[in-house]
Amino acid sequence: MKKITSLGYDVVFEDDLNELQSFLIDHDYSQLLILVDRNTNDHCLPVLQASIPDILDYDIIEVDPGEENKNIDFCIGVWKTMLDFGADRKALMLNLGGGVVTDMGGFAAATYKRGIDFINVPTTLLSQVDASVGGKTGIDLDNVKNIIGTFTQPQAVFISTVFLKTLDDRQIRSGFAEIIKHGLIQDKDLYNKCRSLTLPVVPNEIVYESVQIKNKVITEDPTEKGLRKILNFGHTIGHAIEGYSLVNDQSPLLHGEAIAIGMICEAYLSHRVNNLDDTELEDIVQYLKAVYPAYSIDPSIYPVLVDLMRNDKKNENNQLGFALLRSIGDCDYNKYVDEDLIIESLDYYRNLTK
Amino acid sequence: MKKITSLGYDVVFEDDLNELQSFLIDHDYSQLLILVDRNTNDHCLPVLQASIPDILDYDIIEVDPGEENKNIDFCIGVWKTMLDFGADRKALMLNLGGGVVTDMGGFAAATYKRGIDFINVPTTLLSQVDASVGGKTGIDLDNVKNIIGTFTQPQAVFISTVFLKTLDDRQIRSGFAEIIKHGLIQDKDLYNKCRSLTLPVVPNEIVYESVQIKNKVITEDPTEKGLRKILNFGHTIGHAIEGYSLVNDQSPLLHGEAIAIGMICEAYLSHRVNNLDDTELEDIVQYLKAVYPAYSIDPSIYPVLVDLMRNDKKNENNQLGFALLRSIGDCDYNKYVDEDLIIESLDYYRNLTK
Ligand SMILES: NC(=O)c1ccc[n+]([C@@H]2O[C@H](COP(=O)([O-])OP(=O)(O)OC[C@H]3O[C@@H](n4cnc5c(N)ncnc54)[C@H](O)[C@@H]3O)[C@@H](O)[C@H]2O)c1
Ligand SMILES: NC(=O)c1ccc[n+]([C@@H]2O[C@H](COP(=O)([O-])OP(=O)(O)OC[C@H]3O[C@@H](n4cnc5c(N)ncnc54)[C@H](O)[C@@H]3O)[C@@H](O)[C@H]2O)c1
Ligand SMILES: [Zn+2]
Ligand SMILES: [Zn+2]
Repeated sequence: MKKITSLGYDVVFEDDLNELQSFLIDHDYSQLLILVDRNTNDHCLPVLQASIPDILDYDIIEVDPGEENKNIDFCIGVWKTMLDFGADRKALMLNLGGGVVTDMGGFAAATYKRGIDFINVPTTLLSQVDASVGGKTGIDLDNVKNIIGTFTQPQAVFISTVFLKTLDDRQIRSGFAEIIKHGLIQDKDLYNKCRSLTLPVVPNEIVYESVQIKNKVITEDPTEKGLRKILNFGHTIGHAIEGYSLVNDQSPLLHGEAIAIGMICEAYLSHRVNNLDDTELEDIVQYLKAVYPAYSIDPSIYPVLVDLMRNDKKNENNQLGFALLRSIGDCDYNKYVDEDLIIESLDYYRNLTK
Repeated sequence: MKKITSLGYDVVFEDDLNELQSFLIDHDYSQLLILVDRNTNDHCLPVLQASIPDILDYDIIEVDPGEENKNIDFCIGVWKTMLDFGADRKALMLNLGGGVVTDMGGFAAATYKRGIDFINVPTTLLSQVDASVGGKTGIDLDNVKNIIGTFTQPQAVFISTVFLKTLDDRQIRSGFAEIIKHGLIQDKDLYNKCRSLTLPVVPNEIVYESVQIKNKVITEDPTEKGLRKILNFGHTIGHAIEGYSLVNDQSPLLHGEAIAIGMICEAYLSHRVNNLDDTELEDIVQYLKAVYPAYSIDPSIYPVLVDLMRNDKKNENNQLGFALLRSIGDCDYNKYVDEDLIIESLDYYRNLTK
């Protein structure tokens, strides 16, 4: 069992969930509400129950799975169910699921009766390595992602890789992109460990090291004024591609798949304007190409992609700021790049996959 | 101009709104959004504009007036309008209205893009003396009041009694009940000043003293663990009567009117179990009777009222806790009272008004 202390709470890495059990026993909550989606109800709740046989009484709140349900309508449903269960201010919400469940459940708890305690038990690799620290809660509105939310820290987060066994390979690879990102921006060792892994098995150790990096970055910059922007590596272009794919593809890219493309393009930009050397660029690109499927981007959609980048909430004052690598394990932020060069990086990706 | 420092921000008392003007000029917000309801759009926006001729560009978001519209549907409307206006994280929301507007606007701002700054310009006496400090934001859901919300402090609050000129007499008296309450629980002088006033004119000075008391109480107990409960004087019984009236009366009681009845009943309880003396009880009761209209309560509804008290969120563990006076200007909390005695206090009120 390992622990990381984040902004006022612990992230516990344990495949047996012993600490979770102790947490529930030690705290004097009036009531336990478990938020799941249909899949985590089927696959993860039994794991939780097997690890915690003496779990207290609890009530289940179930939502439909998928990003399209991370919206205000489902959130209202969660609030109403909490009311129906008579939850008071001393109730505890346990969010058991991927980022959709932890984001929405965190928001529902943060705003119910002006805030009740919640803990997160993330069950996808993405939510374990990315949503477990930082205190972001939220829902989408009118297809704008995470536009409504709060910064509210959970009381604790419990991470068990046992949950990942029922997750499909594509979801594992998608979450894995954030681990690669953490290596690229801060820790060459972690990047090399990633390189030597055979997916889909991801050891708890790697998840731990990955969260450690994100946690270091966000605790140094809790209000997103500076350093935290390096977490955005791969995301300026990646988000645009993700957004485009969501609207236009029958089977849209997953977040991490889009970010992997974004990381290739932004590694190229790093090479062009931030001194990332040839060899490292080549290394990153070959590795990402090997792990993630190729995606075809027609030049006719470049203007759409650039527009999407401009609309991204992280770009204030209408400037396109990037996080760019200097070398593997070292990243700068607030690097402003011309549109021509962005197009060039998209061409670079296209040529790779031709 | 007077100022009170609350939890990290200033409450400014000024009838000319000079400080508000300076605030808007000094801060570098990307955008100004003004939230109003139909009435404050008609009556208060012109006052604001007259005081601040050089007001920056702003966008207006208008909601329908009334508690029945302090709900998630209108809140979604506010969020969507913010999105339509392209509000970014550096936008400022100015809530211009009564408690409905400041509560809902505060909540919308606290949750938009995980929180943008907001300032409150309360335009009813109730919102000036009660909603101006404490950081409570919120909306109702399924007719449960303030069930969804946050604790989020505004950047500043600006109080001008000029706005009160267009407020009707009933609304003034309703808000005035909270001023009387502040006197009763903490400040005999303020209570005596109230007694010598001729409504509906309320001097800025009295509003200032009243807010000072509430602020002292909430800053001593920001998380509502103890002392803050004295603010609940008159509210345990008052809320039940307000809730009953809302559902059953054609022209329901206003909040302060119900609280005035609650204060009479709870002053009686204070006399019976907390040593409030005869003369002071008599003084309080005669004064409240003179300011507020009589309301007829039939004994047949006593059980309904007691049920409503039990469901009130402030009563945890199913015990009925009261804030009770020891003398005028001195109040205790966590006083548990038997149901028989509560009934007796309702009878006391009935007999007064027969
Ligand atoms: N709060 C943050 O800091 C943060 C960070 C990154 C991402 N996010 C958010 O997270 C969301 C994406 O997270 P996600 O990829 O976990 O999405 P998700 O919650 O939709 O999970 C993906 C799919 O896997 C299923 N699933 C979850 N756990 C499973 C398990 N153990 N076995 C089998 N199936 C399982 C889910 O039901 C869903 O169908 C996005 O909404 C994103 O905005 C938040
Ligand atoms: N946040 C807090 O700490 C706190 C404290 C007390 C009350 N509240 C909330 O405040 C609400 C009640 O406040 P309220 O009484 O101000 O209600 P309100 O906002 O509904 O205002 C009452 C009426 O007066 C109108 N109005 C407002 N200002 C006016 C003006 N200057 N001239 C003419 N008309 C005007 C409004 O349009 C409305 O019709 C409740 O929802 C309550 O929960 C919050
Ligand atoms: Zn990401
Ligand atoms: Zn009140």
